Amino acid sequence: MNEPIEGYIEIEFPTEEVARVVYESVRIEHETVPYRRTRASFTLNGRKIRLEFKATDNSALRGTLNSYLRWIKVALDSIDL
Amino acid sequence: MNEPIEGYIEIEFPTEEVARVVYESVRIEHETVPYRRTRASFTLNGRKIRLEFKATDNSALRGTLNSYLRWIKVALDSIDL
Repeated sequence: MNEPIEGYIEIEFPTEEVARVVYESVRIEHETVPYRRTRASFTLNGRKIRLEFKATDNSALRGTLNSYLRWIKVALDSIDL
Repeated sequence: MNEPIEGYIEIEFPTEEVARVVYESVRIEHETVPYRRTRASFTLNGRKIRLEFKATDNSALRGTLNSYLRWIKVALDSIDL
């Protein structure tokens, strides 16, 4: 399928500090992805981080969303003590 | 993690007919999910289908997005001849 898919995922954290730590951690992964079949922008806005995406490949998008949600979880787990 | 997560995924199809067929196919799955940890609304609007979601569980959301994207792919594969 090559239908255009777009959307966003936004997560709100208890404090700006937590949002910033998670954002910086995930941004390193975001910037080092070697190739993309999904266009993704990843931004920090106060207590929220936001992933916006556009894709034409359902499977690639599934992989992208899984990666970002996993990176976010790993970052949070490392600060949730 | 229990941070609130929200967002949407929207897919645009070549025709309203294709959108409707995919929508009806996925809607059956959508309505028969036995339990949910992600709140999801699934709607048809002309040539577009849209999934809106709210969750507080990153892993549950990952599962939900995987399921919907897979159901959409299966529906499309069955009409892409």
